[in-house]
Amino acid sequence: MNIIRPTLILDKEKCLRNIERMAKKAETLSLDFRPHFKTHQSAEIGEWFRQYGVQKITVSSVQMASFFASHGWTDITIAFPVNILEIDDINILAGKIKLNLLIENKEALLSLDKFIRFPVGIFIKVDTGYNRTGISASKTSQIDVLLSRLKESSLLEFKGFLSHNGQTYHAQSRHEIFNHHFDALLKMRALKNQYKKEWPGLKISLGDTPSCTVCDNFKGVDEIRPGNFIFYDLMQFNLGVCRFDDIAVRLACPVVARHPSRNEVVIYGGAIHLSKERIINIDGKPLYGRIVVRQEGKKIFLDEKNYITSLSQEHGIIKVPRKDFSYYRVGELIEVIPVHSCLTANLIREYLTTEGELITME
Amino acid sequence: MNIIRPTLILDKEKCLRNIERMAKKAETLSLDFRPHFKTHQSAEIGEWFRQYGVQKITVSSVQMASFFASHGWTDITIAFPVNILEIDDINILAGKIKLNLLIENKEALLSLDKFIRFPVGIFIKVDTGYNRTGISASKTSQIDVLLSRLKESSLLEFKGFLSHNGQTYHAQSRHEIFNHHFDALLKMRALKNQYKKEWPGLKISLGDTPSCTVCDNFKGVDEIRPGNFIFYDLMQFNLGVCRFDDIAVRLACPVVARHPSRNEVVIYGGAIHLSKERIINIDGKPLYGRIVVRQEGKKIFLDEKNYITSLSQEHGIIKVPRKDFSYYRVGELIEVIPVHSCLTANLIREYLTTEGELITME
Repeated sequence: MNIIRPTLILDKEKCLRNIERMAKKAETLSLDFRPHFKTHQSAEIGEWFRQYGVQKITVSSVQMASFFASHGWTDITIAFPVNILEIDDINILAGKIKLNLLIENKEALLSLDKFIRFPVGIFIKVDTGYNRTGISASKTSQIDVLLSRLKESSLLEFKGFLSHNGQTYHAQSRHEIFNHHFDALLKMRALKNQYKKEWPGLKISLGDTPSCTVCDNFKGVDEIRPGNFIFYDLMQFNLGVCRFDDIAVRLACPVVARHPSRNEVVIYGGAIHLSKERIINIDGKPLYGRIVVRQEGKKIFLDEKNYITSLSQEHGIIKVPRKDFSYYRVGELIEVIPVHSCLTANLIREYLTTEGELITME
Repeated sequence: MNIIRPTLILDKEKCLRNIERMAKKAETLSLDFRPHFKTHQSAEIGEWFRQYGVQKITVSSVQMASFFASHGWTDITIAFPVNILEIDDINILAGKIKLNLLIENKEALLSLDKFIRFPVGIFIKVDTGYNRTGISASKTSQIDVLLSRLKESSLLEFKGFLSHNGQTYHAQSRHEIFNHHFDALLKMRALKNQYKKEWPGLKISLGDTPSCTVCDNFKGVDEIRPGNFIFYDLMQFNLGVCRFDDIAVRLACPVVARHPSRNEVVIYGGAIHLSKERIINIDGKPLYGRIVVRQEGKKIFLDEKNYITSLSQEHGIIKVPRKDFSYYRVGELIEVIPVHSCLTANLIREYLTTEGELITME
């Protein structure tokens, strides 16, 4: 296929290798592997997981759960606090598949218990320090309130504790990832020990892309839910989580202008393609993507002096050292390694595989 | 219509008022009004402009031009440097409508002249100080190179000079907007004076939402291309360009969690709804949206101590002073004023009007 505008290239081989590696790790560590499908959001890519034995998945919205349920997925956890306004769609799903929901407060639990019409599994969302959602792991009195309510419910079945330890994404080193993971692990394990007598089957669900990629200690954990690992991206590369060679997506972009007088190149590829997710470059400035060029048929990953410094709706501005200017030719393509592959995929909504196959999110 | 998940509410009355005001201003100042349709990207909203006499439009991509051409728009400027890789689609358009393209370098001009098959209008993109794309207004030798090439072309017709003076978006005050605009105006007028003898019909196209809203001096300008003014947003409000009452879009979001211990509320509404566009709040921290709540049937625009401090894929975290906590109730809706309405609209891709009509981008 001829690429003429910003196009998300997916390296299927790398993608399958990433899935296989994570599936094997889960198997080795006797963990249930429930990958998060919010990263790719594609029915076809979802199928690639089945050959590695995946049968249970995680999604981030009711709509995404409905989409994957309609593509044959029958065991889905919606890893987002219950939004009771969507109760009708939740009931449709609960009547069709094994559905797990997240609860972190009494209001949502009471409403859910009142309006739910089919059995659903309930995870209590635990905050292990990320401070986004969940009950702080130390506030067991709040957990007790929810559990006592769950005990009385006929359709809501308590499954266990779930945490997203998102601090690993803000770590400055692999060492920090280990520390954050170990801290969360201890907190979740303590909860398991405290509650397993009364709830012998309770599960611990913990593990994102950074921790599941680099850590090996999952003692006490029953299930992991990484998502981003299927593609990885610049954020994971900078964290030291993946190698450059593991990154399975890149955005091909036409070069439309060169401005040597200010060391800049302009590409067709902007905020509506890459998202405005940013990390800080070694020069202390925001960076929205790094660059791969082609020279004599070979791909070259340029150093961090070549990077996207700003994005408008359709424009991307690349800072380019004088010595690298010849890599950029108006009317030709360069490739951008996205900062956050989940957000880029969500914007582009289709993939062109290195085998030339077009995969859409529909 | 029942709102159950993040939904972009469009106040049609405000929207029409914004269009009417800008159309009247253009008429008063004898300027051609060629609004930028990248903000709304909707065929139906596009129709609203026709009742105010609009017949010419601006878009930011070839795909957007094809979309609006298929909805009856016959005079379109693609305000993005020509991406020659899209020449086939450009030729299809050029064969159907009056198409204007932007040129800022010789490589693109030569390719375009070689492959174009129908007449198109050419604007030379001028950089009046924004430093994104275009030839610096002072570098007339570069302009001369393009013009001498255009003279020889049979299908490329030189129309004039076009500039996007995007510095107005980074102004700190209305005074700075006036200054930036006046500076760009002088540069463009100088070009007009220099070249009008040889090209008597040449046009000057200049004017974005900030300058077209607050400035009145457009002497020498022939055409304005504002886009964002149809909705405005928090960025324009903070610049002092619009009043709060002019902002025509807001994102309705369900509240899913409250965390009084850290002064935070969590909504269903994240980076895939609002975009990660940010501005800096009065406390020096990044802000991704401000909040409107409903109390006893009345809408209240809360102060800047209530604001979105971070966004994940689906979550938004709102900082909430203790005294305002009671405005946020789990299972109910609040509204977010987006930082940048163009990017939010591009992500949501449909509008629910205050009259209850659903408008999609298809």
